[in-house]
Amino acid sequence: MTLSISARFAFETDQPTDVLLQFEAAAIPEQRIGKANTSLTQAEHCARVPAEDDIGERIWLRSQGRFDVEYSAEVTIERLLPDLGTLEALSPHEMPGEAVKYMLDSRYCPADSFQSFVEGEFGGTLGGARVDAIRQWIADHFDYAPGSSHVNTTARDSFIERRGICRDFAHVLVTLARASTIPARYVACYAPRVEPQDFHAVAEVFLADPTVEGGGAWHIVDATGMADPAFTAKIGVGRDAADVSFLTSFGPSNFLFSEVRVEKL
Amino acid sequence: MTLSISARFAFETDQPTDVLLQFEAAAIPEQRIGKANTSLTQAEHCARVPAEDDIGERIWLRSQGRFDVEYSAEVTIERLLPDLGTLEALSPHEMPGEAVKYMLDSRYCPADSFQSFVEGEFGGTLGGARVDAIRQWIADHFDYAPGSSHVNTTARDSFIERRGICRDFAHVLVTLARASTIPARYVACYAPRVEPQDFHAVAEVFLADPTVEGGGAWHIVDATGMADPAFTAKIGVGRDAADVSFLTSFGPSNFLFSEVRVEKL
Amino acid sequence: MTLSISARFAFETDQPTDVLLQFEAAAIPEQRIGKANTSLTQAEHCARVPAEDDIGERIWLRSQGRFDVEYSAEVTIERLLPDLGTLEALSPHEMPGEAVKYMLDSRYCPADSFQSFVEGEFGGTLGGARVDAIRQWIADHFDYAPGSSHVNTTARDSFIERRGICRDFAHVLVTLARASTIPARYVACYAPRVEPQDFHAVAEVFLADPTVEGGGAWHIVDATGMADPAFTAKIGVGRDAADVSFLTSFGPSNFLFSEVRVEKL
Amino acid sequence: MTLSISARFAFETDQPTDVLLQFEAAAIPEQRIGKANTSLTQAEHCARVPAEDDIGERIWLRSQGRFDVEYSAEVTIERLLPDLGTLEALSPHEMPGEAVKYMLDSRYCPADSFQSFVEGEFGGTLGGARVDAIRQWIADHFDYAPGSSHVNTTARDSFIERRGICRDFAHVLVTLARASTIPARYVACYAPRVEPQDFHAVAEVFLADPTVEGGGAWHIVDATGMADPAFTAKIGVGRDAADVSFLTSFGPSNFLFSEVRVEKL
Repeated sequence: MTLSISARFAFETDQPTDVLLQFEAAAIPEQRIGKANTSLTQAEHCARVPAEDDIGERIWLRSQGRFDVEYSAEVTIERLLPDLGTLEALSPHEMPGEAVKYMLDSRYCPADSFQSFVEGEFGGTLGGARVDAIRQWIADHFDYAPGSSHVNTTARDSFIERRGICRDFAHVLVTLARASTIPARYVACYAPRVEPQDFHAVAEVFLADPTVEGGGAWHIVDATGMADPAFTAKIGVGRDAADVSFLTSFGPSNFLFSEVRVEKL
Repeated sequence: MTLSISARFAFETDQPTDVLLQFEAAAIPEQRIGKANTSLTQAEHCARVPAEDDIGERIWLRSQGRFDVEYSAEVTIERLLPDLGTLEALSPHEMPGEAVKYMLDSRYCPADSFQSFVEGEFGGTLGGARVDAIRQWIADHFDYAPGSSHVNTTARDSFIERRGICRDFAHVLVTLARASTIPARYVACYAPRVEPQDFHAVAEVFLADPTVEGGGAWHIVDATGMADPAFTAKIGVGRDAADVSFLTSFGPSNFLFSEVRVEKL
Repeated sequence: MTLSISARFAFETDQPTDVLLQFEAAAIPEQRIGKANTSLTQAEHCARVPAEDDIGERIWLRSQGRFDVEYSAEVTIERLLPDLGTLEALSPHEMPGEAVKYMLDSRYCPADSFQSFVEGEFGGTLGGARVDAIRQWIADHFDYAPGSSHVNTTARDSFIERRGICRDFAHVLVTLARASTIPARYVACYAPRVEPQDFHAVAEVFLADPTVEGGGAWHIVDATGMADPAFTAKIGVGRDAADVSFLTSFGPSNFLFSEVRVEKL
Repeated sequence: MTLSISARFAFETDQPTDVLLQFEAAAIPEQRIGKANTSLTQAEHCARVPAEDDIGERIWLRSQGRFDVEYSAEVTIERLLPDLGTLEALSPHEMPGEAVKYMLDSRYCPADSFQSFVEGEFGGTLGGARVDAIRQWIADHFDYAPGSSHVNTTARDSFIERRGICRDFAHVLVTLARASTIPARYVACYAPRVEPQDFHAVAEVFLADPTVEGGGAWHIVDATGMADPAFTAKIGVGRDAADVSFLTSFGPSNFLFSEVRVEKL
């Protein structure tokens, strides 16, 4: 399955400012990147470093004035797509070390205080069935409402307000999974049929790998229901949106616009 | 320089509960561990995994009832101890990928909102001099006050309340360093002369490595002033206290007591 | 119906400190106070002022060192006790001016963000039936857990954590009522059968007065289910616990103990 | 001194929605209202009630669709304008009952946690001199930055971010005054020379009344420095912005625009 992706965005800074970008589909075994083209305004400095969990790359810039990004690529996706509801949880003592950080509280996903809630609401379910129940509960109780949240909105806020955008839906799912002792991470991605078309975000949960006896694997879940895991091109992963923003500015900056198009080929 | 460390603590759970422990001095190049002894109550499951940045190990338990931990070790420390105030900052575009996550907001260290404050208060300083100024500012404005904070206290709370314990002091320093575009992480550790004797916490900042042209290294800073980096045995590191608690319980648990002794040999 | 009330508590301050106390049953039409006795340690200053909505009195102290309070009284209660579930709501344009402030956000009861939740969860109900549904929802979803909350815990925290003490239960009920456009206030009170015996807190909602055509009245609701409105002696009212703490200290103080006994005569 | 005031604003709601408005200059002894004209879109219901502390009026509406407000008035102001820095504080035991609520924590002004900060920063000052020092400290450390805050921004947020608009400046001043045991309230007002012209907000502190032996009075302080107390027309007062918003909607609404003009005659 191949996606055609194009994305453009721009920002400006008055002063020379350090900026971190992460917007390219990641070159990882489950995604083959073709015809990729990244075009950036000339900057004082520009350096690439590997991103979280070695999924994708971050670009460091130091720039002043207007900065434009243009990106296009064709991404062929081949990932395992088991039935989420049937996947078993790993016991914590079976968790590999690198999954543990995704069980702990992060900036936008402070899971610890939700332990009573998840037991009360989803107490009869485990593993993939628990994640499925969480996803369904969010679908039943939340409104997708562009403009209703902002950069400081946490999963706590969204849980109370019962609305948000993809970022907020993903944060709530990640939080409730972690409160259920299931490792969960945030995934910035491209996907078709996202309305309105924009950078998208989903969650991944670490559950049994049905192809490896005793092994675990990350499985995509989109709490908004808009993205199909079969057609989701990952940009990067992290504890939450603080780790994989497409634009992180270490100083004042003005965001000017973004435009994203994702189509199935 | 060698430290003699002993630590005991206990907790209990009504139900079989998954618990994550991290309390042993880490075996890393700058610390040689000798005569180590860890004694744990028998548990249903017990597994070791590498901890954050491969510094130290976490222990997964599943236990019910009372659980006791006893640990002792001799740790010989040999680390570089440059004069912090003279160290230069790396430019962001020189930062290795693994340092980037320590520039971003985390659960207890949401640095983004402090950018104006650090510019206003420490605007004339850079790199190690900036960190030194932050450390001194905390020393001048904060009271060390056992009992004044709790598990949910963030660097925002402590910044307002102007008091806390080692954990809170470290969180504030980490936050203000990150707001200054300097990677900073939280370090759980053992150190002598900590009053009252307990598990301790300090910060580490990523600045130039004076021994490697163009390279960077982590340097210990104790915002409380109690621990000398030359005599600090690291247990583990993370974004903040959420990552390196000596005890993280995935379910209700009662903490019973802890007792820590650290002496120079 | 008459209650016998006795209460003792003590605190101490190192420095001369201004302290506000409010612990006596209020002399209001629905409560007749008999055999009241208040005994206070001698203080530098001591002055009484009317409390919120002229219900009860606050006592200003300036004291240093240990301060002891002893209070006893017999309180005969005669209040209207309509069936809450049948009471109609007043339309906002019928609300008297003094009820309006109890529809607005306060320190521990920031109601605004709960509008979507109350519509989704209690959308089919109005007025007293809505309050009854909120009370029942809290009873079904929350654990009464002494020690689980602290002085900074808000209704947002409790809503997420699904547990707390009388203060927290009252805050959640007040918040969800306000989000339903029903004025709600916090009531500090004495009541028998509160387990463990202590100062208690309930909520009051402003709904139709069944005895006055077109009029409104305050009606007690105890979200914990422990206090019977017929046997509840009000101390004072306010927007939330910030307004009617039995002890508010304007400077550092140590709380030493409290002991409360309430019995039906 | 007479001000000419005109204000227009509009909002719309999809559903019949209860809305609370407060935008007219208050008729109080220190302000004589002349040539006042209020023009409102026809609504299902419209009722006036006295506002907080009997200063001004609130208007209850129930409306659907677009709603327009037009207001104009001439306000002649004659208020006492003592030199703030010379005013003495009242001792808490001298405070009248109605001032006490303005010493306690409110939605946007949770003062309690700032006690250490105010002692450390302003410890040598009392009464009006303390308020003056707080005002100057805000002027020295904060940027007036339209768009930098939003409806949920509290004095805690602004204290950290060191920027905001009139609302935020007033919240910080109110909070730091309360933390200094000085009653402080939030005042919605009209004033000339506010840049950009808009509804304005200042603080009032309760200090000695220089004309009444032993008495207290409310004194205006504008933390932004833009409004002169001699030319400030009060709309209403409250604990903080939650109490005196010009528009409070009990259900979803879209704010369309506002336009304010204030001139000296």
